[in-house]
This record gives sequence, structure tokens and C-alpha cells, in this order.
Amino acid sequence: MFVQQPIAILDSGVGGLTVAKEVMRQLPREKIVYFGDTARTPYGPRSSDEVVKFTREIVDYLVQFRPKMIVIACNTATAAALEDIRSRVAIPVVGVINPGARAAIGRTVTGCIGVIGTEGTIKSGAYEQALRELSPHVLVVSEACPKFVPLVEMGNFRSPETYETVRGSIGHLHSYPMDTLILGCTHYPFLTETISEVMGQSVKLISSADETAREISTILQDKRKLARGGTVPVHHFFCSGESRVFKTIAQQWLGEQIELTPVVWQVPNIS
Amino acid sequence: MFVQQPIAILDSGVGGLTVAKEVMRQLPREKIVYFGDTARTPYGPRSSDEVVKFTREIVDYLVQFRPKMIVIACNTATAAALEDIRSRVAIPVVGVINPGARAAIGRTVTGCIGVIGTEGTIKSGAYEQALRELSPHVLVVSEACPKFVPLVEMGNFRSPETYETVRGSIGHLHSYPMDTLILGCTHYPFLTETISEVMGQSVKLISSADETAREISTILQDKRKLARGGTVPVHHFFCSGESRVFKTIAQQWLGEQIELTPVVWQVPNIS
Repeated sequence: MFVQQPIAILDSGVGGLTVAKEVMRQLPREKIVYFGDTARTPYGPRSSDEVVKFTREIVDYLVQFRPKMIVIACNTATAAALEDIRSRVAIPVVGVINPGARAAIGRTVTGCIGVIGTEGTIKSGAYEQALRELSPHVLVVSEACPKFVPLVEMGNFRSPETYETVRGSIGHLHSYPMDTLILGCTHYPFLTETISEVMGQSVKLISSADETAREISTILQDKRKLARGGTVPVHHFFCSGESRVFKTIAQQWLGEQIELTPVVWQVPNIS
Repeated sequence: MFVQQPIAILDSGVGGLTVAKEVMRQLPREKIVYFGDTARTPYGPRSSDEVVKFTREIVDYLVQFRPKMIVIACNTATAAALEDIRSRVAIPVVGVINPGARAAIGRTVTGCIGVIGTEGTIKSGAYEQALRELSPHVLVVSEACPKFVPLVEMGNFRSPETYETVRGSIGHLHSYPMDTLILGCTHYPFLTETISEVMGQSVKLISSADETAREISTILQDKRKLARGGTVPVHHFFCSGESRVFKTIAQQWLGEQIELTPVVWQVPNIS
């Protein structure tokens, strides 16, 4: 009965589209319902309590579609609300922090792993905790990059300004012996080329988006809930506020037209 | 209560050590009990029924250690016996085929994926099935390489003879537009350098061993059964027949001394 139910993916805005795109590529039979909280982006500078409240509201909205899994495709919301949401719903809830941490441990040779994310994610220490839960021996270097999400939400992926912002935020990480850098925010894959230019070829970039899509596949298969059959799924996108830029970025990133429904909240949505 | 229980890993011989090594690296807190069926290696040319029987016998032996998970670290045994073993035990059972298939789909760009394995694995069509379960669009090219396992079990990883055997077995795969080749036998990572020389840099090699270790981590974490604490685990190795070469290869591959117990079967072990 579960196999034709959708996977629900949520984010503060367009960042979770990096997860959605990889799910579409790695699991082309799966139907997605996506929620971008564009009215309240960015989540990074907000308090943990506020992020938990917003995440609950989005989950309450998404459960009307009877999803078989909820994906918190936002590192800030995963750090703040993963356990809370898990305790509130009876279906699997996947965050984006464990998959990125696991992939980094799988790939590092030096054992020194870098993590970049929003202020909320970095301040929570969630990546250090996830990395240490898997392996006690890794060295972790973290850096908050509060300027990255606004660049992405404006669609400013590649420009001299973007390059200077990225270099100014993470250029100094070269002084550590890291060989692996976790893009600990689902918005950052939009900036992959620029981050790669700044960090150089010796540092492998781990996209929490790619890795999360793979773990969604692993967990759905383990629970025997993969979609079957030959039907091409129709995805649905929702956003809480600004929708024009969201739609432009989504269609450009996904390479296809999307059905986007702006949502009028039942609850006050601007704090 | 589960967290200090071991992970049970089984193989026809030394091949599963490639999985064990990655589990030790990616999950250094986990204790492993390993069984190599050196009395009856190789499994590749055997009938499916016989492989099921052997796998059941090994699992019946390993359950005495109260494992929290069973890993069938042999592609031939996974193809033949995964569903059978799953129906017989109440703990998670992980095979090596789905992880390799998933990783290949995650990495291919051309959509053409090669699979090499034993005769048993290739004849079963298990990789095609696993790949198509995830994605209906991939092109799969399969090739049985019956000469590889005996080379590995003798410890003959790099020699002119090994190179010629590998080139003769898979050199013709260059005529396909594949960009990803699944090493669909846990013995093959011992031959990675040679296979890589023959296939060239444009073809990414997917080790079912590395990928399986990662999925073990994902599933144990999802089920909240990861080992905790600071104790360094002591692993135990068992083999059913030849033990001297097994021990030499194991210690060389794992880079540490091992405790190896030759097992005298309660049941007749040579068919």
C-alpha cells in the first residue's frame, strides 16, 4: 500500500531542490511533494526553537499527502528538529546530516574533515556529533558561512561577487590538513563550482544532497517501500512566500517545468 | 541491548575481507565475526541450491555469537540466498548487490553500467534486476570472470599473469559506452589496480565492498543499533578449510594480526 505514496521533501527555500534533483535521478519512479519555506528563508540565523516550530508546521502541511517518508532537506532544520519530527510521525524521517557525515568518513584519508554550513547548523555542533558517533578518530574543522544562502536564494551562483564571498569565507581552511569538505547546507551545491575553485582539487566536496538521496534509496529499499511500475511520476512543489524566483531557480536546476502552488498558511507565517 | 553485539560477515573465502576492512574503517567501534568458507571456495561455479545450503550452514554457525546483523559479503551467495536467509532470521540481513547497484546509479553519467562477477552472479541476473528496480533507464553490460577468484584466493594480486587474465576477460568491454563498472564480487577489490589499468581512468570502479560498508552504517544507524563507547573491539575470524593462506592474506589486507579459528563442521562440508 505504501509504494505509490510520495516522498515529502522540505527546506527553508530552494536548497532542498538539490536533494529533490538527486532523488529524481537516482529513483526516477518516486513521486515527490516539495515544500520551500520562502516566506521565512533563511533559517540559519534563527533560534533553534523557531526552526523547530516552522518545521513542525511544514510537516503538518505535508502529511495531508500521506507521504511514505519525510526528508528534512535542510541542515539547519535537521540539526534543530530531526528528533522532534521523528517523535511526532510514524513514518521514516531522514535528515541531511548523517548521510553527509557518513560519506565524509568513507572518503577521507587524512582523517581531517571540514564542515561548512549556516550559523544554526555550525553552532549546533550536529556534524561533529554525527561524525563522532560513527568514528571517534576524525578531526573536524567547522566554519559558518552565513552569506551563502542569500546568494543562492537570489540565484547568484557564479559571479565575481560570489567568488569573493566564498574565498573570504572559506579560503583560510587551506591551512588545515583536510582532504574532505562537507557542504553542510543543501543550498551549497548550487555553489559547487565556485567552492571547488577556492578549495582546489585536493579537497573532495561532499554534497549532503547527493548522499541523502542515496540514503533515502537505501532506507526505502530496506523497508520494501520503493515505488514500482512504469508510470512517470508527477511531482508537486509548494512554497510559502516568494514564488517567482523559486520557480525560475527550480526549473533551471531541475531542467524541467514544475507545478508550483503558493501556499497561504493557516497559521501566521512571518515571525 | 543490541549495541555491543557483533556484525556477522560471511564469504566463500577471503573476498568478504574487503567488506570487513571497510566496516573497520568506517565503523571502528563495531565488533566483527567473520566466516570464510575456504573448504568450499569458489562458490561461483556451484549451483544456486548448493550455495543456498552452504550459506544457511554458515548462518546457523554464526548465530551462536548473537549478531545484530548478518552481512552476506559474497555476491554469489547474495544472488542465491539473500531472500532465503532474510526469511530465516529476525535480524537485518544485508547483501552486497543492492549497495553496488545503488552506487553505480548514483555515479553514472552515460547511463551505461558494466558488471563483472562470478558465473553464478552473472547467470542469476541479480545486478540487472537490482539496477532496474532502482532505475528503469540504465543499460547494463555483464561479464562473468571465472578466473579472478582463484587468483585472489592464491594471493596472486599483481603479476604479468594476473594482468593478462584481467585484460583477456574484460578488455573488450571498452567497446561499450560505459562510464561505471561494478566489481560485482567481493574478491575483486584485491585486483583493483590491475582492473583499473585495463579499463582506464574514464571508467569509475564501484567496489561492492566499500558501498556495502556504508549501507551497513546507514541501516544500523536507522535502526539505532550502532555500537557506542570507547572500547576497541576484538574481531574474530573463522574458516572452514585452508587457514594458512587465509591468515596471510587477511593480515596483509587488514594490516593487523588476526585471531583465526579453523572450524570443524558438524555437517559434511565437502560436497
